[in-house]
Amino acid sequence: MDRVPVLKIGDILLVSIQVDMSDQTAVMLQEDLAERIVATGCHGVIIDITALDIVDSFVGRMLSTIASISKVLDAETVVVGMRPAVAITLVELGLSLNGIRTALNVERGMELIATARADEWVMDDVDEDTETTATT
Amino acid sequence: MDRVPVLKIGDILLVSIQVDMSDQTAVMLQEDLAERIVATGCHGVIIDITALDIVDSFVGRMLSTIASISKVLDAETVVVGMRPAVAITLVELGLSLNGIRTALNVERGMELIATARADEWVMDDVDEDTETTATT
Repeated sequence: MDRVPVLKIGDILLVSIQVDMSDQTAVMLQEDLAERIVATGCHGVIIDITALDIVDSFVGRMLSTIASISKVLDAETVVVGMRPAVAITLVELGLSLNGIRTALNVERGMELIATARADEWVMDDVDEDTETTATT
Repeated sequence: MDRVPVLKIGDILLVSIQVDMSDQTAVMLQEDLAERIVATGCHGVIIDITALDIVDSFVGRMLSTIASISKVLDAETVVVGMRPAVAITLVELGLSLNGIRTALNVERGMELIATARADEWVMDDVDEDTETTATT
């Protein structure tokens, strides 16, 4: 019964998946992540799958579930470190990882999350500006 | 034959050990880390052992070796995420992890590395100041 560790780095939670995911491991990871997002108030989750040789439908569904849970808790999820062979197999299997953002490595994933958050702020600012203009 | 992934985050390389280390895995990790330090020019290595239930003499020696290799390549090594039970067992076994710095979590490890690097700079500055004073 291996537990996948969740590491906090600044505003981001980092998970590096290295072990074969069983039903139990997957459920524990989802629970751990959800609890840590709430406890830390982090706005980003990065899941590193460099170590995975295969991403099957089970892992794909787990990643989708984690992304959905995080979204509800106001956190962006980015999957990083996918191997070229894994990408090819995913497409051949017809798995498109719906709703999951990907990036080449952890650093780009962090940039992606920062940009996504910044865009939200800009959108908020634009809304405020429009209101101010309307008032004056 | 599992390979432990090495993640680059800014000026730091992060390794999260989750699998049981065999001789081969340990050697591969040392080689990977040494290559990545040289390739990236990173000045810090953080090894997360949150997932480890046991740190025996083999793992302890591996950590020491990694720290020594990194030092030669001008990088600081910090081991983070040690469980209380692991710390107790280590001391009971008489293993003191010589030459290895530890921190409670990844963030504190990063601070430790940043401080260590800053101290070196300050030392350099002091040397320069002394020289300047001597000249005037």
